[in-house]
Amino acid sequence: MLKDKAIGIDVGGTNLRAALVSADGAIIKKLKETTTGNVMDALKMAIESLMDDSVVGIGMGVAGLINRKEKKVIISPNIPAINGQDFGGLGGGVPVFIENDASTAALGEMWMGAGRDFESFVLLTLGTGIGGGFIHKGKLLDVAAEAGHMSIEQGGRKCPCGSYGCLETYASARAITGAVTKAIENGAESAVFKDYAGGNIYKLTPEDIYRAAFDGDNLAREALKDAGKYLGIGIANLINIMSPEAVILAGGLIGAWDIYINEAVKEASKRAFKSLSENIKILPASRGDDAGVLGAAHLVFHGEKAYTC
Amino acid sequence: MLKDKAIGIDVGGTNLRAALVSADGAIIKKLKETTTGNVMDALKMAIESLMDDSVVGIGMGVAGLINRKEKKVIISPNIPAINGQDFGGLGGGVPVFIENDASTAALGEMWMGAGRDFESFVLLTLGTGIGGGFIHKGKLLDVAAEAGHMSIEQGGRKCPCGSYGCLETYASARAITGAVTKAIENGAESAVFKDYAGGNIYKLTPEDIYRAAFDGDNLAREALKDAGKYLGIGIANLINIMSPEAVILAGGLIGAWDIYINEAVKEASKRAFKSLSENIKILPASRGDDAGVLGAAHLVFHGEKAYTC
Repeated sequence: MLKDKAIGIDVGGTNLRAALVSADGAIIKKLKETTTGNVMDALKMAIESLMDDSVVGIGMGVAGLINRKEKKVIISPNIPAINGQDFGGLGGGVPVFIENDASTAALGEMWMGAGRDFESFVLLTLGTGIGGGFIHKGKLLDVAAEAGHMSIEQGGRKCPCGSYGCLETYASARAITGAVTKAIENGAESAVFKDYAGGNIYKLTPEDIYRAAFDGDNLAREALKDAGKYLGIGIANLINIMSPEAVILAGGLIGAWDIYINEAVKEASKRAFKSLSENIKILPASRGDDAGVLGAAHLVFHGEKAYTC
Repeated sequence: MLKDKAIGIDVGGTNLRAALVSADGAIIKKLKETTTGNVMDALKMAIESLMDDSVVGIGMGVAGLINRKEKKVIISPNIPAINGQDFGGLGGGVPVFIENDASTAALGEMWMGAGRDFESFVLLTLGTGIGGGFIHKGKLLDVAAEAGHMSIEQGGRKCPCGSYGCLETYASARAITGAVTKAIENGAESAVFKDYAGGNIYKLTPEDIYRAAFDGDNLAREALKDAGKYLGIGIANLINIMSPEAVILAGGLIGAWDIYINEAVKEASKRAFKSLSENIKILPASRGDDAGVLGAAHLVFHGEKAYTC
């Protein structure tokens, strides 16, 4: 059998996605498992069910700080069960590659998605938290890229990371639902409370908030715009630092593009150096949940050559 | 004559430094001119006085955003006279290379200074403004690296760049003297006013403030510590984003290391991801005003190979 495929895996906080990917970027087979049980078991099962003789290696994108040389997760704030875990042995003979999940998403979009037309871009994953991955000269820049933990309001909200005013405490899904919930607790009037999440404000999702905003709810709209403004400040900082050709936005929150992202684009263009921002493209990722598994497979096919040198 | 030397030039806001540099990094001859007259004339004179048959090219580090391919200054906020100027023709036959001045300083420290032991580091120039240069895998990362224009207090001080709360509005020399001057205007008691700058608070320099702090003046001390705290926030952001092995600090303000930088180191270690910051070195640049001309000469000797690929 021709050795021409890779297993790409995206290990997230609640789901694990895995796929068998061909060398030209086609997804041959894919699966999804929950990681609410034993993550390591879920990983092994996914590998077992996709493994065949054509597989040359396994790539994994993991939410957290990783040590790719030692194939270890240094710290995964959202999946504590894998902190310190050694992923190198999971290949059962084939090599294992490990990266941060926002970095694999960036590689996936570069290879087969919205990043194809750019030599350099910053990808941000906008979900419960905010992650970052930097593509530079068609390769992955081997840096932490923890853009969600850039403080933009130095005396601001306490972040679980230990700092204050990190981008993700203002612009993530958790920040948006938190802001709405808190406002309602403090007596704000909002359709969100009555019409969504069965009247239970602690079950509100970002989707509920977006739908409410779309339906004209002011509180929901302001929460999304406020988060978007902060996102724009973070994007402006990244433009001034990384001077990318594009900023690609991924994750569930991009569904709220016309309110949340539009506000971010407006704020970023007010703040970033004009000469750096005037020609920049800010656009949505195009491969959705597949970007991570594609990027993880890309790592297998390219190894060290996937990275800037 | 052997073609084995380069002219390195550092074009700053008030001074222009130029040197004839050998391929092994020795400074053979150097000179300094003021740029308060006609900058382009000063540049031409410097080149003329250093040029000989052994020169293979001219490298320049310029304070501002540059377009290195077109050899043009896009915008130099502190030397408006060179905005849009084309530097390519200044070589009179030998090739010309142009870079941002913090990037050439980073290259100079990498080649012949405090950066020699590191594969990757962030260099910050702490002067009137704050500049940045990133070394990645022993090469210059080809990005804007405008670390001084990262907003860390989003609703904070208005920055000349158009944004608010940029790092340099809180942590630069201009920010420090500004804070002391304003406090004295508002009636604060301080030895700085009486004993330094001839009693003229508008002539206070960062050196005056450091000496006053060293002599026990509280206002001066607090101004330096406050600026240091903000610098630490900026450094923490850069650690979380760039995960360097070291942060190298250059520029006049590093003379205030025991107050200003110590505070920055303390704040950065509180805020950055522990796994990224615990082994990091934060240290002073060792080549002072020579780093820029050395880095500019390095560019001549290496061309495109000076950059990450």
